[in-house]
Amino acid sequence: MGKWGVLAIALALSNPAVAQRAEPVDLDMVSKIRQEAFHRSQVMDTFSHLTESIGPRLTNSPAMSQANAWTRGKFNEWGLVNVHDEAFEDFGRGWEFTSASVLMLGSGPQGDRMQPLHALPKAWTPGTNGPVEGELVQVDIKKLADLEKYKGKLRGKILLLGEAREYKRGTEPDSHRHDATSLEGLQEFTVPKNAAADKEKRVKEYTERQALAKAVNAFFVEEGALAAISISGWDNGIIRVAGGGSRKAGESAGIPELAMISEHFNPLVRALLAKQPVKLRVDVAARFTDDSNQPGYNTLAEIRGSGKADEVVMLGAHMDSWHSGTGAADNAAGVAVMMEAMRILKAVGAKPKRTIRVALWSGEEQGLIGSQAYVAKHFAQFPEPTDAGQKALPASLREPTGALVKRRDYEKFSVYFNMDNGSGRFRGIYAQENLAAMPVFEAWLKPFNDVGATTVATRNTGSTDHISFDRVGLPGFQFIQDKLDYFSNVHHSHLDTWDHAEPEDLKQAAAIVASFVYNAATREDLFPRKAQKGDGGD
Amino acid sequence: MGKWGVLAIALALSNPAVAQRAEPVDLDMVSKIRQEAFHRSQVMDTFSHLTESIGPRLTNSPAMSQANAWTRGKFNEWGLVNVHDEAFEDFGRGWEFTSASVLMLGSGPQGDRMQPLHALPKAWTPGTNGPVEGELVQVDIKKLADLEKYKGKLRGKILLLGEAREYKRGTEPDSHRHDATSLEGLQEFTVPKNAAADKEKRVKEYTERQALAKAVNAFFVEEGALAAISISGWDNGIIRVAGGGSRKAGESAGIPELAMISEHFNPLVRALLAKQPVKLRVDVAARFTDDSNQPGYNTLAEIRGSGKADEVVMLGAHMDSWHSGTGAADNAAGVAVMMEAMRILKAVGAKPKRTIRVALWSGEEQGLIGSQAYVAKHFAQFPEPTDAGQKALPASLREPTGALVKRRDYEKFSVYFNMDNGSGRFRGIYAQENLAAMPVFEAWLKPFNDVGATTVATRNTGSTDHISFDRVGLPGFQFIQDKLDYFSNVHHSHLDTWDHAEPEDLKQAAAIVASFVYNAATREDLFPRKAQKGDGGD
Repeated sequence: MGKWGVLAIALALSNPAVAQRAEPVDLDMVSKIRQEAFHRSQVMDTFSHLTESIGPRLTNSPAMSQANAWTRGKFNEWGLVNVHDEAFEDFGRGWEFTSASVLMLGSGPQGDRMQPLHALPKAWTPGTNGPVEGELVQVDIKKLADLEKYKGKLRGKILLLGEAREYKRGTEPDSHRHDATSLEGLQEFTVPKNAAADKEKRVKEYTERQALAKAVNAFFVEEGALAAISISGWDNGIIRVAGGGSRKAGESAGIPELAMISEHFNPLVRALLAKQPVKLRVDVAARFTDDSNQPGYNTLAEIRGSGKADEVVMLGAHMDSWHSGTGAADNAAGVAVMMEAMRILKAVGAKPKRTIRVALWSGEEQGLIGSQAYVAKHFAQFPEPTDAGQKALPASLREPTGALVKRRDYEKFSVYFNMDNGSGRFRGIYAQENLAAMPVFEAWLKPFNDVGATTVATRNTGSTDHISFDRVGLPGFQFIQDKLDYFSNVHHSHLDTWDHAEPEDLKQAAAIVASFVYNAATREDLFPRKAQKGDGGD
Repeated sequence: MGKWGVLAIALALSNPAVAQRAEPVDLDMVSKIRQEAFHRSQVMDTFSHLTESIGPRLTNSPAMSQANAWTRGKFNEWGLVNVHDEAFEDFGRGWEFTSASVLMLGSGPQGDRMQPLHALPKAWTPGTNGPVEGELVQVDIKKLADLEKYKGKLRGKILLLGEAREYKRGTEPDSHRHDATSLEGLQEFTVPKNAAADKEKRVKEYTERQALAKAVNAFFVEEGALAAISISGWDNGIIRVAGGGSRKAGESAGIPELAMISEHFNPLVRALLAKQPVKLRVDVAARFTDDSNQPGYNTLAEIRGSGKADEVVMLGAHMDSWHSGTGAADNAAGVAVMMEAMRILKAVGAKPKRTIRVALWSGEEQGLIGSQAYVAKHFAQFPEPTDAGQKALPASLREPTGALVKRRDYEKFSVYFNMDNGSGRFRGIYAQENLAAMPVFEAWLKPFNDVGATTVATRNTGSTDHISFDRVGLPGFQFIQDKLDYFSNVHHSHLDTWDHAEPEDLKQAAAIVASFVYNAATREDLFPRKAQKGDGGD
């Protein structure tokens, strides 16, 4: 596409002489879908089972296997076909934790102040193998050279990593829903800057960070430190924590490491600055559940099409989660909605022309690993880099490696819909700069304008599994959602739990997804694709 | 005062013919106070020691004794006189806890899901004496008759008390500062309703609640239940918890009881409703620090007046706190500000005519007990009721018992200033319907208009130690403060910690208090009093 292609399309859209034929929508079927979704919903049963019976689902953990098995069972029960798990290689080891406690054993004027401190372990760091006690020392390592000054000083110690962080006062309500103004704001598209310089910086930072993390893990083990404590990413007693150590067999997993609420971490920093000795007891029951690297597993299931069964419409959400909450908004919500959409389509007796395939991804939290492997295997991939430095980078940071290698099913693929922006209501959809998609989405959203879904925005959204499709030129989309308290309370935190979700929002989302995939699976043509890098307007 | 007395005063205030002489303010001294308060502040040193070296200061706990001793030391160091603790009788036993953990040992489809649950003990409930394990059962007791259905069913069980609570979304920012509009709103006074019917209801509820709590404590012990868990008062992972059991020797302290975050409590309710067995391990290290009831102790200190030394101006704040945080906004903030005001007055060489006396109260959280006992002993009290039912009620709910009995110093008392509305900046003062106080306060606030303190409101504010003075007709006041996150995050919660306070706000408050008490101690007359019940306009 030439330099002014986008403008040309924009003009074409606003010129009735070249306007597309209106997208037909089967309102009878949409009506049935709404009835099933709103009045006979099972979305909360699914959501409840994933979050509260199974619990958090770290990739390759025993709970994630339970979730794979339970969701296959539900898909079979609902009459879906081709229900199976599909492996992606070399993810690493599983890990789980069952308890964690930190106790301040002594501080204060009499050296006898005791207090339980609230902290939870980083995933893929070892447990303590029973309680350990040690004096607390502050350690601030920003670069490899910083290791030197701690040599010989950490044996038998508990490490306080980094500095105190000043409390940030909340200036906005915790929970946010879009209004007309904020939705209107989404209609603005930011013309991108040249990202080359920024990318170089990100590659450098990523590489250095990885190297430092490995060196630090090994160093702490060598030096015989007992455990390490970092500050939680958020204030207000929230533990926001992801991974540490290493999930890879053969790499050092470091020492037990926990994230602590800022309200308990900062006082420890101040006590040490004031030369008050602090002694802690740390007890973390955590374990690697494999000795060697294992594949991860996505769960898949289908409603077979009739007429164009070899063409495929996909929907999906990642089922893996972090470990401190119960992976509710991130992303039992998305899984429950996608499963519910499939259940609804079976319940209303939908007979799509194309095959509808649902994917419950794993390894999303570690870099969209499950969806990317799936897309590479079934649809297309860029050649693997041969350079070791490039190999070590995540796909988003790699240099181009040559022309896209397309599989047989690449041309049979229609569209993919993803949900992974928390549990809030759908307010529209991001078109990922695919302008031809916009009138289609507008037509499909119309029957859901009355439940708040109205907006089709040109802009891109990233950071989740639709990107695995988008990156190889396949249409992949994510919905615009009300944020609720996703980015204030729950994202990757111990509060990512059942109670922060809204049942009505999940029902609404399931109705829209069921309708969208039905429309995509029955429309005349495959879903329009946008130009991709290297297409040159072909 | 007759029926239209208030109106008459209001008219007098607005009539220049009867306007009072302008209240003189020694701006030279106020300027010195500001310099010391703003540029050589020690308020954060005091605040830090109380919160982080000593920690929470439950009435009669060892930490509260440490605080009494440490504050006496500071007062002596600063050259105050008559530094001493003053006992108030029959408070009860001390209590402290050093650790608490709750572990979900088994739930979910395989009955093997484990998870640490976040909970902290209620004060004055016993510890578990090592870990205890038991099956969870839900218990909902709203009245005495409800006990019957649990008879013989609780032995060896852990009790889940009450129902799940639906999550409340935050619709306002966590942190709040006054603006012109909200300050203007404070100028409105609500003419009181007749409170007699309401009081009768409150007496009934109080009496029934007390009787039920005692019966339940004894019942759970008799039935052999291991521990009990209630839901925290607030959402978002905050543990808001006060007392349970009993502080009184000879009364049943019940079984170990903890408050759990709603995000962990609600799933337990749902699991039991779904007939999933849940097993918990509870381990609370808590102890009563006395065998018999002990007096509580207020700490007092003075700057002696010269000229009118037998007349007294008082300032104070309660030093006791709840136990789950470090009693920072409630109320190390108030204590640090009042202490700092005294330090400032010494530092600037203030020579007040009247004696300035600071009081650091104890027993405030259990019903203003320390300040009330002090006022009764030194200034005035209503006769003790003889009726057992009346005796059992807190002072605020008792029927009038006759004319006020005034001590010798009643007529020598000028005014009392209190701080106990969190750690936020002073924005003015509540005049407690004392209209004659208003022009005085306006004059005193004027040199602090530039740091945000501008408002004198007629309205009453309650719930803290100035009420012990107000109730016997002595002028007692509390300042208007910015709320910050007092009522969203920190009040009686485990987040009531150092980081939620603002150093600049505490400096500002100390300057204002030092100035106010200096003004009160040097002005021509004692502080104006309002009419009190039974005065009849005399």
